[in-house]
Amino acid sequence: MEFRPGGRTARVRAAVLRAAEDALIENGFAGLDLADVARRAVVGKTTVYRRWGTVPALVAELLTEMAASSSPRTESGWLDEDLRANARLVQRTLTDARQGPLFRSILAAALTDAGTAAALRDFYEVRVAEWAPVVEAAVARGELPAGTDPEKVIRAVSAPLYYRLLTAAGPEEADADAAASVAAAAARAGAFRSPGPPVRGADRSAG
Amino acid sequence: MEFRPGGRTARVRAAVLRAAEDALIENGFAGLDLADVARRAVVGKTTVYRRWGTVPALVAELLTEMAASSSPRTESGWLDEDLRANARLVQRTLTDARQGPLFRSILAAALTDAGTAAALRDFYEVRVAEWAPVVEAAVARGELPAGTDPEKVIRAVSAPLYYRLLTAAGPEEADADAAASVAAAAARAGAFRSPGPPVRGADRSAG
Repeated sequence: MEFRPGGRTARVRAAVLRAAEDALIENGFAGLDLADVARRAVVGKTTVYRRWGTVPALVAELLTEMAASSSPRTESGWLDEDLRANARLVQRTLTDARQGPLFRSILAAALTDAGTAAALRDFYEVRVAEWAPVVEAAVARGELPAGTDPEKVIRAVSAPLYYRLLTAAGPEEADADAAASVAAAAARAGAFRSPGPPVRGADRSAG
Repeated sequence: MEFRPGGRTARVRAAVLRAAEDALIENGFAGLDLADVARRAVVGKTTVYRRWGTVPALVAELLTEMAASSSPRTESGWLDEDLRANARLVQRTLTDARQGPLFRSILAAALTDAGTAAALRDFYEVRVAEWAPVVEAAVARGELPAGTDPEKVIRAVSAPLYYRLLTAAGPEEADADAAASVAAAAARAGAFRSPGPPVRGADRSAG
């Protein structure tokens, strides 16, 4: 019974992850403390220490949950539209009243904590894999050159938005639309093609 | 005499900024303390407090110094070569044994401290302005469409490298070369053109 959805374990987990978000937003990663999270979640300290053990483990599980509950991709059948939807989703997340400060805290932690960096890499792999099919579909439709690497295109859409977050103000919606347009233009120009497979008939082992 | 180059004031400033770098690398922004910086620099605490006052003010001056002493642009006369040189410079800086951890600490601080974020924005404005002329020259040579925004192109070269720093491993030299190629391809496709000036003869005030 312990693991049924909506059961006590699931409720405790939800309360603890929500409390961890609150604590990260208020105090940042350096101020995150399992006893404080337990108090905020109204859960026994022993439960939190036994279940999560360390702050990086708790943040890693928070990122797993954030990846699992993030918005699914849209598929409009038109590359520019899909990339713009992806860019606007990233932009809205980074500037959301709650998600924005939460991401800033986690990104800051990942810059100096290797465990959080690894958990954050997993988060982006899940998110990039969720959106890669819109690029695969564009290749299949002939909108993009064969051999275009879908993950590189999706990462190229996000990159300018995170760069703005780090080095300028924003990002704003116009930045999202520009990021999508630039990635689409570069993709159409073949800039994200992976090195091709060996040419058929060319026996490389004989070289 | 106080302000002549190489004089006591200049020596104190250099020692304090170097000590601030050391402290940021070791303890991060949250652990930065003016008394500790004074001790590391072998400078009186009173001097440091009187001259810099606060930690964010000290970090802002460090960023001003880092911008002033960064490598100048190269101008090869070929856009792809110039953008690659810019990308490799950014990549080497972000992964340098000393500059890498220093940038990580400052970027982490900028994500949660508004004063450091403003100082970092100034740093990037200086660096982007330093490299923008290589794009202006490419437009003048006809390599890029008229109306291409030089600063957008330079920022597009850096964005994927900072994004990798945040969300993946690296960046490595191959990532730098890819970032330069993608930015050049998008620029040639006209993706960084600014909205054009009003067409000559079209009297907008009459509308």
